Amino acid sequence: MVEQLVRSRKGVARDRLLEATSQLLISRDTLEVSLAEIAAAADVNHGLVQYYFSGKEGLLLALLRRDAGAALDSLRKLVEFDLPPLKKLELHIRGVIRTYFRHPYINGLINLLQDSSPQNAAALANFFIKPLHEFQKRILTEARDAGLIRDVDPVLFYFSTIGACDHIFKSRRILPYAFDIRQIDTGLVRSYSDHVTKLILDGLRPERRA
Amino acid sequence: MVEQLVRSRKGVARDRLLEATSQLLISRDTLEVSLAEIAAAADVNHGLVQYYFSGKEGLLLALLRRDAGAALDSLRKLVEFDLPPLKKLELHIRGVIRTYFRHPYINGLINLLQDSSPQNAAALANFFIKPLHEFQKRILTEARDAGLIRDVDPVLFYFSTIGACDHIFKSRRILPYAFDIRQIDTGLVRSYSDHVTKLILDGLRPERRA
Repeated sequence: MVEQLVRSRKGVARDRLLEATSQLLISRDTLEVSLAEIAAAADVNHGLVQYYFSGKEGLLLALLRRDAGAALDSLRKLVEFDLPPLKKLELHIRGVIRTYFRHPYINGLINLLQDSSPQNAAALANFFIKPLHEFQKRILTEARDAGLIRDVDPVLFYFSTIGACDHIFKSRRILPYAFDIRQIDTGLVRSYSDHVTKLILDGLRPERRA
Repeated sequence: MVEQLVRSRKGVARDRLLEATSQLLISRDTLEVSLAEIAAAADVNHGLVQYYFSGKEGLLLALLRRDAGAALDSLRKLVEFDLPPLKKLELHIRGVIRTYFRHPYINGLINLLQDSSPQNAAALANFFIKPLHEFQKRILTEARDAGLIRDVDPVLFYFSTIGACDHIFKSRRILPYAFDIRQIDTGLVRSYSDHVTKLILDGLRPERRA
């Protein structure tokens, strides 16, 4: 009973640290946030960051695992849902864009972690990229088997689609200077989602019969 | 005469430093290359890096200007060439992918510089993003006026297309773990170029008439 309570309080502190990190990364719009600031924002003893995550890299990796896990959960539900395959594809693309919009630090985290070590790159591939790719493959296969899209290599599809979804977010610091866009708001996210879904769904239409 | 010679030798040293930087960034596949290593590779006095570029950030910015300039020169020629608009669009997309393949550090440089200061982000927008976008707009307008593509917002097109082109390169450290791809070779670049051009060109086809 006491042990359970201790475990659950430990879980709470860990979750609070992750959520505080997420909020700080969003509000500061940089990964340059100190552990002291994170601990203070979470109202948790500084030393616990070391205890739970063995330092900042571990904390960032855990945050990405958390966010990736949430995104993959939604995608799993979508794949299993009873919906027309093209609707699934559309909702998947809109979901990826929404994830980047809500967690604009994801891109930076992925870059940082894949560059930091082969171990982190492999971990990232296993807990995020491979499952995401597998779900996409299932949607693509379903749509192709129903004759709704042409044949497409799911690996190439993965890169072109995710790249199309994420680029506007990773370019956010250039937007004011290049396109007079002050910030990415929900209106722009809607237009961008409409644009990308139409581009990709039309781009995958089956060949016209002669 | 002597002054001309000095100017030209200065130009040579500056170009050598840029080329040495480019080569080192490619062979090491990281931006973590020291000024001493660059100066040694260029066989140029260390102090000249400071003299020409006021430090590493200036050197990296100059390298991106050089590479962006070359890419924009090709694109300008392509836009002015007497070719069918869809062929221009296809060659443009293939050219973007080829640029990322030959200079895989471009992405990292863009991220680093846009994050380093609003001044660098503004410079980047002015010497690279805006002209690139303007050229794309001309190709899109030409193709649409000829009835070959539907109407598309050129700003949204910019992000989706550039993102689709670059994502496989910025993910290169994950490829072995996620997709069992050891490295990006010319065969993969060809498949990826075919995939992205087809996706985008088909994605922009005019609406079918009822």
